[in-house]
Amino acid sequence: MTIAINPFIAAIPTNPLRALFPYGARPGMLNLASGHPSKDAYDLEGLAEAASRASRDFSAWTYGSSAGDPALIGALAETVTTLPPGKRLLVTSGAQQGIDLAIRTFAEPGSKVMVPEPVYPAVLSTCAAIGVVPVGYQIAAGDNELAEFETVLQTAGDVRAIYALPTFGNPTGETLTREQRLRLLGLCARHGVPVIEDAPYSDLWFRAPPPPSLLDLAPQVDGATVIHLGSLSKIMSPGLRIGWLIAPESVAAAMQEARQASDLQPNALAQRVAWHYLQLGRLIDHVARVRGLYAERHDALVAVLTRAGFTVPVVDGGMFIFPVLPADKGNSDLFERAVVQDVLFAPGPAFRAQPDSGLFADRMRLCFAGLAKADIVVAAERLAAAVHA
Amino acid sequence: MTIAINPFIAAIPTNPLRALFPYGARPGMLNLASGHPSKDAYDLEGLAEAASRASRDFSAWTYGSSAGDPALIGALAETVTTLPPGKRLLVTSGAQQGIDLAIRTFAEPGSKVMVPEPVYPAVLSTCAAIGVVPVGYQIAAGDNELAEFETVLQTAGDVRAIYALPTFGNPTGETLTREQRLRLLGLCARHGVPVIEDAPYSDLWFRAPPPPSLLDLAPQVDGATVIHLGSLSKIMSPGLRIGWLIAPESVAAAMQEARQASDLQPNALAQRVAWHYLQLGRLIDHVARVRGLYAERHDALVAVLTRAGFTVPVVDGGMFIFPVLPADKGNSDLFERAVVQDVLFAPGPAFRAQPDSGLFADRMRLCFAGLAKADIVVAAERLAAAVHA
Repeated sequence: MTIAINPFIAAIPTNPLRALFPYGARPGMLNLASGHPSKDAYDLEGLAEAASRASRDFSAWTYGSSAGDPALIGALAETVTTLPPGKRLLVTSGAQQGIDLAIRTFAEPGSKVMVPEPVYPAVLSTCAAIGVVPVGYQIAAGDNELAEFETVLQTAGDVRAIYALPTFGNPTGETLTREQRLRLLGLCARHGVPVIEDAPYSDLWFRAPPPPSLLDLAPQVDGATVIHLGSLSKIMSPGLRIGWLIAPESVAAAMQEARQASDLQPNALAQRVAWHYLQLGRLIDHVARVRGLYAERHDALVAVLTRAGFTVPVVDGGMFIFPVLPADKGNSDLFERAVVQDVLFAPGPAFRAQPDSGLFADRMRLCFAGLAKADIVVAAERLAAAVHA
Repeated sequence: MTIAINPFIAAIPTNPLRALFPYGARPGMLNLASGHPSKDAYDLEGLAEAASRASRDFSAWTYGSSAGDPALIGALAETVTTLPPGKRLLVTSGAQQGIDLAIRTFAEPGSKVMVPEPVYPAVLSTCAAIGVVPVGYQIAAGDNELAEFETVLQTAGDVRAIYALPTFGNPTGETLTREQRLRLLGLCARHGVPVIEDAPYSDLWFRAPPPPSLLDLAPQVDGATVIHLGSLSKIMSPGLRIGWLIAPESVAAAMQEARQASDLQPNALAQRVAWHYLQLGRLIDHVARVRGLYAERHDALVAVLTRAGFTVPVVDGGMFIFPVLPADKGNSDLFERAVVQDVLFAPGPAFRAQPDSGLFADRMRLCFAGLAKADIVVAAERLAAAVHA
């Protein structure tokens, strides 16, 4: 018997980053492709202590609220994020579940969601799985920076939400200025379209904190609606799968029902571990240490690439750069040549919002969070060798 | 600005069981409504030991496979479930995520899924959230037991899957016989419709194990397709949110993509805890102890109810009974009268697949897993008093 698969599900594109996992597992491979922090960027001692404390709480082992553990919600709102009045925070299974819930809450099958070009590819998978059409937008530098964005918003038709990653973007690492944020919010408000702000990297700044989040700026823009997504994955542990969404009360109520219908509630044990970790008071020092590690690795990576002829757009934090290959070096077999040199990168085309656009053939996403400084220099030199081979 | 909510999401019915949570939290309330095991039905010492071991594994804290931790998959297939050749096991966030993934994989918006009447209400929420229409079926006792099922299957139109909970059902506690299972599989195979077998309670038998699962019987029925859903929630800990689905390879591949698009991967920490718990070798004794506890509580509850004039259909395991009120005692304010008596039950109508059917007004679901034997007797007596007040 051949069983028919829902065409939405059958059409989910394979996540090109997860498809790189097997390469990353090869012995000797230096992995610049995956957005995975290195082992020394975890506070394993603090996490183990938090797990030990959590394991003695009965609430770690039993059912709880679909919205999340009230104690954790309180601790997140106090120490990790802002929670403006009139908004509700729901704990999610990583920011990815927040993306899924937000898109599903606003966009029914056949409607459209605007996504950055280039984009974190899991967003495209989420759209595909629910039959929503992603439409790419670019925000240029300069005076007319939001002109294309506005044109797409006006002409795409049936746009239900804007997905944005305005701080240390994935893959570009780029950050919208305060002025760009306010203009983006203004345009979306004027068109009555909510903004889904994905913000997993905001705490990973190098020298100075980034501009305020869209969530924090929204009160300055009449009629702006922001769904803000945060995560402990990049500052505490991705294995915990603890993220959150912040939404206006009425929208959050719908999202909580959707969440309950999809997997009932957040993980009780992981929530207790996160809460105990926050109580330990180690997070601020830990994140400061990680910032220093990443800044140093970033600088080492950029130095080698620049000497090798790459053009590296400036980033001020996060985990990624999205450099341009040396002129005339964009080459379809570069990935294989790099693998032979035992170095892995994520090809630029993996991040196309429109798969047939031909964009980003001369770019690659490199993660500077996953390798120690000495290794990252070796990896960059291998990459340079592969490019110039 | 009023933001439009996707009509599917806006139409999710509130889960009537979760709506009872606030009543259950009142001091002095004896809760027969919620399907929550009592604290003494957990192996808290073993779980704490497993958590302590898991916290020292780096893999507990970092990213992992969307399909689940291979070590846990192996341990589940060895000790907790069967994994027939040609099938793949994916770890899910509880069986609820398995229900969501299975329904979404087979049914696109506007199509139909058949569900038992009465049904576990979260299944209806899942259908609503994705715009799928649930159609109720009943399986009667006696010779012609599957006649109505077949009629619905033939006449409902566009049925993409059958949801079934054949072992110690929720809410009824009832179990399909081996013959009923084979006939059900035969009918579904003949109509080319897959069966989603939800099996969270199968290990909680009182005197003898239940008939083989639909998954295990499927090879005897040409063309039968079964998606089997299991869970550690009822035998280890619901807070871990560890379930699994077993599906034919090709279907499992689509489900894994859908899962990745929805929340990336299972909780890494909870998977390591589950794996270490299984390594401790305590599960068999623990489940045997829980079986004994529940059987004793069940017998005590049924004895009081029977004396009070309830008709209690026989169950052989699980966590629930679905008794019929004494004649002429079905009453719309019984719930409030019971609350005044400090006892909570789940009203029969909460389990209607067709909300306007008028069914089950004279029934209630009672959970015998959540209260110690002495308390369950008091709770049953309070219930009897409320009924006869």
